[in-house]
Amino acid sequence: MTLTLPPDLTEESLSAALDDFAAALGPAAVLRSDPEVREFRDPFWPAGDDTYAPSAVVMPETVEQVQEVVRIANRHRVPLWTHGQGRNNGYGGPAPRVGGSVVVSLRNMNRVLEIDDELAYAVVEPGVRWFDLYDALQAGGHDLMLSIPDLGWGSVVGNSLDNGMTYLPYGADFMAPCGLEVVLANGDVMRTGMGAIPDNKVWHLYKRGLGPVLDPLFMQSNYGIVTRMGVWLMRKPEAYAPLLLTAPQDSDLEAVVETLRELRLERTLEGVPILFNTIIAAAMAEGGAAFQADVGPMRDEEIQAMADAMGIGRWAVRCAVWGLEGVVQARLERIREAWSRIPGSAVIHERTYGRDEHDAIEPTPDKIQAGIPNLDIIEHMDDIGHVGFSPAVPLTGRDVRDAVDFLRDLIEREARANFLAGIIIGNERSCVIVTGASFHVSDEEQVRRVYDTMKMLVREAGKRGLGEYRAHLDFMDLASDQYSFNDHAYRRFCETIKDAVDPNGILSPGRHGIWPAGLRGERVAEAALSD
Amino acid sequence: MTLTLPPDLTEESLSAALDDFAAALGPAAVLRSDPEVREFRDPFWPAGDDTYAPSAVVMPETVEQVQEVVRIANRHRVPLWTHGQGRNNGYGGPAPRVGGSVVVSLRNMNRVLEIDDELAYAVVEPGVRWFDLYDALQAGGHDLMLSIPDLGWGSVVGNSLDNGMTYLPYGADFMAPCGLEVVLANGDVMRTGMGAIPDNKVWHLYKRGLGPVLDPLFMQSNYGIVTRMGVWLMRKPEAYAPLLLTAPQDSDLEAVVETLRELRLERTLEGVPILFNTIIAAAMAEGGAAFQADVGPMRDEEIQAMADAMGIGRWAVRCAVWGLEGVVQARLERIREAWSRIPGSAVIHERTYGRDEHDAIEPTPDKIQAGIPNLDIIEHMDDIGHVGFSPAVPLTGRDVRDAVDFLRDLIEREARANFLAGIIIGNERSCVIVTGASFHVSDEEQVRRVYDTMKMLVREAGKRGLGEYRAHLDFMDLASDQYSFNDHAYRRFCETIKDAVDPNGILSPGRHGIWPAGLRGERVAEAALSD
Repeated sequence: MTLTLPPDLTEESLSAALDDFAAALGPAAVLRSDPEVREFRDPFWPAGDDTYAPSAVVMPETVEQVQEVVRIANRHRVPLWTHGQGRNNGYGGPAPRVGGSVVVSLRNMNRVLEIDDELAYAVVEPGVRWFDLYDALQAGGHDLMLSIPDLGWGSVVGNSLDNGMTYLPYGADFMAPCGLEVVLANGDVMRTGMGAIPDNKVWHLYKRGLGPVLDPLFMQSNYGIVTRMGVWLMRKPEAYAPLLLTAPQDSDLEAVVETLRELRLERTLEGVPILFNTIIAAAMAEGGAAFQADVGPMRDEEIQAMADAMGIGRWAVRCAVWGLEGVVQARLERIREAWSRIPGSAVIHERTYGRDEHDAIEPTPDKIQAGIPNLDIIEHMDDIGHVGFSPAVPLTGRDVRDAVDFLRDLIEREARANFLAGIIIGNERSCVIVTGASFHVSDEEQVRRVYDTMKMLVREAGKRGLGEYRAHLDFMDLASDQYSFNDHAYRRFCETIKDAVDPNGILSPGRHGIWPAGLRGERVAEAALSD
Repeated sequence: MTLTLPPDLTEESLSAALDDFAAALGPAAVLRSDPEVREFRDPFWPAGDDTYAPSAVVMPETVEQVQEVVRIANRHRVPLWTHGQGRNNGYGGPAPRVGGSVVVSLRNMNRVLEIDDELAYAVVEPGVRWFDLYDALQAGGHDLMLSIPDLGWGSVVGNSLDNGMTYLPYGADFMAPCGLEVVLANGDVMRTGMGAIPDNKVWHLYKRGLGPVLDPLFMQSNYGIVTRMGVWLMRKPEAYAPLLLTAPQDSDLEAVVETLRELRLERTLEGVPILFNTIIAAAMAEGGAAFQADVGPMRDEEIQAMADAMGIGRWAVRCAVWGLEGVVQARLERIREAWSRIPGSAVIHERTYGRDEHDAIEPTPDKIQAGIPNLDIIEHMDDIGHVGFSPAVPLTGRDVRDAVDFLRDLIEREARANFLAGIIIGNERSCVIVTGASFHVSDEEQVRRVYDTMKMLVREAGKRGLGEYRAHLDFMDLASDQYSFNDHAYRRFCETIKDAVDPNGILSPGRHGIWPAGLRGERVAEAALSD
């Protein structure tokens, strides 16, 4: 077993740091060898490639232990890489950007600190999974719903800090998180917003404070380790009606997008609808089977035949309405009326759930939009990996059509894979087209081809003014390179802050393209990636 | 005429800087003497006191001119203080925190750069007032509504950057702004979010980017000068029903707050309701007359008599519902049902406006909640000044009651003024109790007494864990002092960023308590203020 070392560190200096971590946290909280450490690699990355392999893993359980970890890392100049759960596998999972980093896994910092029924919010530590918070709400008998993503195993905090999408009303524009506690690079504990006032009661209730607003600065950044976050919850509504809206032809895309935008702008639709193409819709319906990497790219006629046979159409929208019975009624009418203008379309509305009927919710889409976490869509996915490419696009028919045509063409041609599209309508004016490609993890040649295609996509999309909303480790720098306005003014500003608040560059160097001064040489130049 | 000089500058060095400004911007864009410069003082501050007097005013008209201003200020080490319109008179108006600063007034940078009907947003420069953007929407025949504050003369950008409240649905949690262009302290132009990608189309449509999220960092801060901002607009709804909900007794406050919270949590009420006490409600109804500084404090029996005689109750909620006809109908029913549980209460609903009936809107509250800017509530206010104190409080009956009792007692007793309360329900979990006191501007003794009372309020509120959501120049430092968790970790972090991004400390030093290294001696210590 060869230990992957971080830049500028010897095995002895790393080992001294690990000894200090073990002395501070207890030896059980420091993983120093395989197979334990191997669990914290990118599960979809070729097994023999150590580019993104951590050297060790530390698992603090308290804020004080996180402070200790940071202080020790400063003393030894050890780069850290933090996650809540590290389940974000389409983007690199728990693996660090800089090989040899010590992964700070917060999986054991997993307490639900507070659930407030009156004001409908919770406060969680970063190791709390969607499953855990949901279970705590159930156990306490709370009539509160949590806005969740498709998979329940991730960290509530980690997903929020990565700009991950969730689907209930508080998912729109990332509205759920409020108020952070952060361990800074110097070991200081800071509370943001009104939390900076001792004994203040609106820390997790009011989104600003007095002076600069810092919560969003800790999203997709490497300026601190978040150890506590408020999450807004929704009371169970009188009525909850999950819907599937289908359109039969690929050419319906423009009308589908325009209709969704208008329904979303008038708030007839709330939350975060998601628009699937046939292949993803079929995969959802069949428990992930059609994700299979070896069936693509299907011909258009085959896709159309599948769409017709399964009754899912070429485009299918998973969405819902929540509210007073009268409000839900009026909205359903309006949706039916608007959707009926698309010939051959359908509004599938199996049932409306009352406030006390959530225990009866069975179908996966109904569970997700009711905040009931699950892992349904990744059943039967052994040996199938996936890497995401996800640009943000204006919510107009022509913009989405242009982007979809461009993405599909490139993915089918270069990756020789099926084009999988989940178009997340994250607000009423823009969407994120979550695409990418699947592959057999054991087929290294296929894996390399898919990653190479993704890099081409990042570059070609950038030329069209399209940027990723989050990026896989392997092309974070390339994705960041596209944000080049005025000689990368944005990145230069972010790196000025980075150098000021983390002078030794210990916190997640390279995360989303932001490097500390001492490690800027690790940035992969676009030119190098092009070859 | 004595020129107020900034710290560490001589009259000669300031004069050299002003010459450079005039050479770069043209002499007409640099105001160097009274009466022009005097217009940029705090209109409510004693006229003979130069503590917050600017030395001069520069009025750039383009981004390039703003860059020039910043570069010149760096060369000469001149502190700048920026505003869009500087109409925020309850908090100091256009005046700088540091006497002798050169005010950068962006009033002439007043172009509406874009109105997008399809995606319902506008892009504005910082000198654009609510009036201007409304006029541009009208002139272009757009069916779009703007979320506005009570007064139409302020800057859309300036109000947003100060965390100012507006009342339509996009006012909740400050949702309207999206995407900034910023001139940094070094003269660089930066675009935030997706705007960092050249030719990107979701700059003003998607609230995040790739990497740290910066827009909120420029709220209430002094890290840059914002020269462009996106503003989300709302399509005119099928139905718009403005409402006044009244409650007859002071003791109804708890029930009022609880009812509003539940209606707001279930999204029956959207936007930003505001809860007035009798004196403010009467002032609103009578065009500001009862703001008069010489009628207070009224006895409780007098207030009750006024409440009963005018039919406005002891607590009156200005709110509205917007949406599909069926949705508005269902919501009105629900509001009536919920409100009727408060004995003696009333739901006043004069009329519902259809999409084409906005030209017929006359009453001030109906105009404000339809986004039609005006100055109605400050008519007849000659010689009456006002200073605000506005803590954020959890939206529960007991929290609001505790805060109101504490504030009323202190203001009536110490300022010998009427307690004016506008409780802004800025989201579904917290509110900001906008209070303070009025005075005759010409009565310096009364003015001093009121400001002293405000300082006492800031300090006493801080002891109870209550913090201001924005603060007047004269007690910004004291307000900031309350945010003291972990030896002011928040302020120390903000000042670390300040020193990194503005090493010469030229941008708005002292704004909301954040000082550059070279001027930290200007901070007024809490101990000094206590005396």
